[in-house]
Amino acid sequence: MSERVKKFKEEREKLNELILSRDNINIKRFFGIDNSVYRDGALDARTKEMLGLVASLVLRCDDCITYHLIQTKQVGITDEEFDEIMSVGLVVGGSITIPHIRRAYRNWEDLKK
Amino acid sequence: MSERVKKFKEEREKLNELILSRDNINIKRFFGIDNSVYRDGALDARTKEMLGLVASLVLRCDDCITYHLIQTKQVGITDEEFDEIMSVGLVVGGSITIPHIRRAYRNWEDLKK
Amino acid sequence: MSERVKKFKEEREKLNELILSRDNINIKRFFGIDNSVYRDGALDARTKEMLGLVASLVLRCDDCITYHLIQTKQVGITDEEFDEIMSVGLVVGGSITIPHIRRAYRNWEDLKK
Amino acid sequence: MSERVKKFKEEREKLNELILSRDNINIKRFFGIDNSVYRDGALDARTKEMLGLVASLVLRCDDCITYHLIQTKQVGITDEEFDEIMSVGLVVGGSITIPHIRRAYRNWEDLKK
Amino acid sequence: MSERVKKFKEEREKLNELILSRDNINIKRFFGIDNSVYRDGALDARTKEMLGLVASLVLRCDDCITYHLIQTKQVGITDEEFDEIMSVGLVVGGSITIPHIRRAYRNWEDLKK
Amino acid sequence: MSERVKKFKEEREKLNELILSRDNINIKRFFGIDNSVYRDGALDARTKEMLGLVASLVLRCDDCITYHLIQTKQVGITDEEFDEIMSVGLVVGGSITIPHIRRAYRNWEDLKK
Repeated sequence: MSERVKKFKEEREKLNELILSRDNINIKRFFGIDNSVYRDGALDARTKEMLGLVASLVLRCDDCITYHLIQTKQVGITDEEFDEIMSVGLVVGGSITIPHIRRAYRNWEDLKK
Repeated sequence: MSERVKKFKEEREKLNELILSRDNINIKRFFGIDNSVYRDGALDARTKEMLGLVASLVLRCDDCITYHLIQTKQVGITDEEFDEIMSVGLVVGGSITIPHIRRAYRNWEDLKK
Repeated sequence: MSERVKKFKEEREKLNELILSRDNINIKRFFGIDNSVYRDGALDARTKEMLGLVASLVLRCDDCITYHLIQTKQVGITDEEFDEIMSVGLVVGGSITIPHIRRAYRNWEDLKK
Repeated sequence: MSERVKKFKEEREKLNELILSRDNINIKRFFGIDNSVYRDGALDARTKEMLGLVASLVLRCDDCITYHLIQTKQVGITDEEFDEIMSVGLVVGGSITIPHIRRAYRNWEDLKK
Repeated sequence: MSERVKKFKEEREKLNELILSRDNINIKRFFGIDNSVYRDGALDARTKEMLGLVASLVLRCDDCITYHLIQTKQVGITDEEFDEIMSVGLVVGGSITIPHIRRAYRNWEDLKK
Repeated sequence: MSERVKKFKEEREKLNELILSRDNINIKRFFGIDNSVYRDGALDARTKEMLGLVASLVLRCDDCITYHLIQTKQVGITDEEFDEIMSVGLVVGGSITIPHIRRAYRNWEDLKK
């Protein structure tokens, strides 16, 4: 994993801890659902991570894309599958998604290191 | 298929024809990609329709959701799989997607008729 | 309450029941948070309903706006307060929110009937 | 002009009057800018209406699109120019704009009646 | 105030001056409304800053969030009130707002320094 | 051209090459349309670049704005025309666009260097 991705993960975890240390019940419960919704069920985690990735892409959220990139890599998404997830997001979301696709491909390559 | 869904499909096809009759080369090419991007490839059409559905949901586009509902039904998505696609979209997109989820469930039931 | 608002409430409740009858645990938990987040806490329900209303306006979700209109009316928001919530949403979200503001004012008047 | 467009204009004007009757100073000033920003300046009104139309399309606001359709028709936009505005919006905003493009073409035809 | 927030404020003010130096009448008038809409009225400035903050959060605009953080701090919003504003935005806007909430909490802590 | 803009262009081109090296047919075709849609037609390239700029602004995509800034500069948009494009985007998209307008003015000045 590259320095960029490593730094992203560390920052993300540190700030998630800060948020959860506040002990707001609704925020905590939301974080709980946010974890459980990607777990194996009628759809397997692999498919759900792809859903999370394309949703993050069309909503143009770089951090969300990076997070799901790490996850999709872990569940074994291939390069060709990744291309096709990006292509669906591009067609649905338009050229406005291209800057995010650029960074997604950069981070996807980073994850191979 | 219910009256509501039938009417949607007819209106959709009639207006797509109107658009394409204008012979704008870029619009025509876009419509071409929009068809081919959901076809079997490294990912099968079944998975791609799910990607199209969740993307449409988080972008809150009722007509796009209805179209992908029809498609996901045709590729054999089960009720439980449908629930989980909706749940991912709901968590990613928030309560602002709920009115669209309501109409999606209504149309999903309609498609069983 | 006018026919329009009454019909909205009925449709909303019927479809919420349909969704919850599916017994998807993550969707059910989300609906739970969606209820509890607007309850009295460090901020009172009155303030929270205003937050929900302005968030719905800038995200341009008619059904969400209508729902929070009903709620803000119940917690006693005055006409002048309503105007100012709309004005903040308009400035933040731009002229693209105006069609939603038009329908919000129409429904606000409907609620007085 | 068709019944559909006529009804839209009447509803729009009636509700704008309702909003302005509230005498909220910030809303009134916003409506003032919203009028003046499309007037002839360094760019002519014709170009500015095209800007307003494409902005409304990519933000997927049907009422805003319909309003700017009426305006672009009045400043003499041709069918081919209209096609190209739609094509730019489609490429920038993606397939998610297509339902709005469908209704835009329908209303564009309506305006010829 | 931390270095990060100080730098943000300086950059913001410098570029606002650049924009206003252009003397575009509509932009100037917009900036005028943008100031006046948060002032005490039927709703007090405290409530309006909360509205501005939650609207900025669900629209996922980091700079807007940071600006309203500074303002809400100045009008005396407590930590618990801040948590609840974040929780409403999170539920309305979904997990896609979480990266912005992370940065908001970081900056909120920064403002205590 | 400033260092900032130069760096943006280099990064953009390098990553576009990475994307296109993947040889995904739908992504390649999309990039093709994305080029051709801004070429002279019923509307000249000058007008189309303005459409691309305002669309990028209201969708709040910094990289897209920077790209179209470079293009609009090349087709000879004047400072006063630029101001008016920004003003239309600001009124349509609201104060949420202001951080992007700030960076757009900074980059516009950079391009003069």
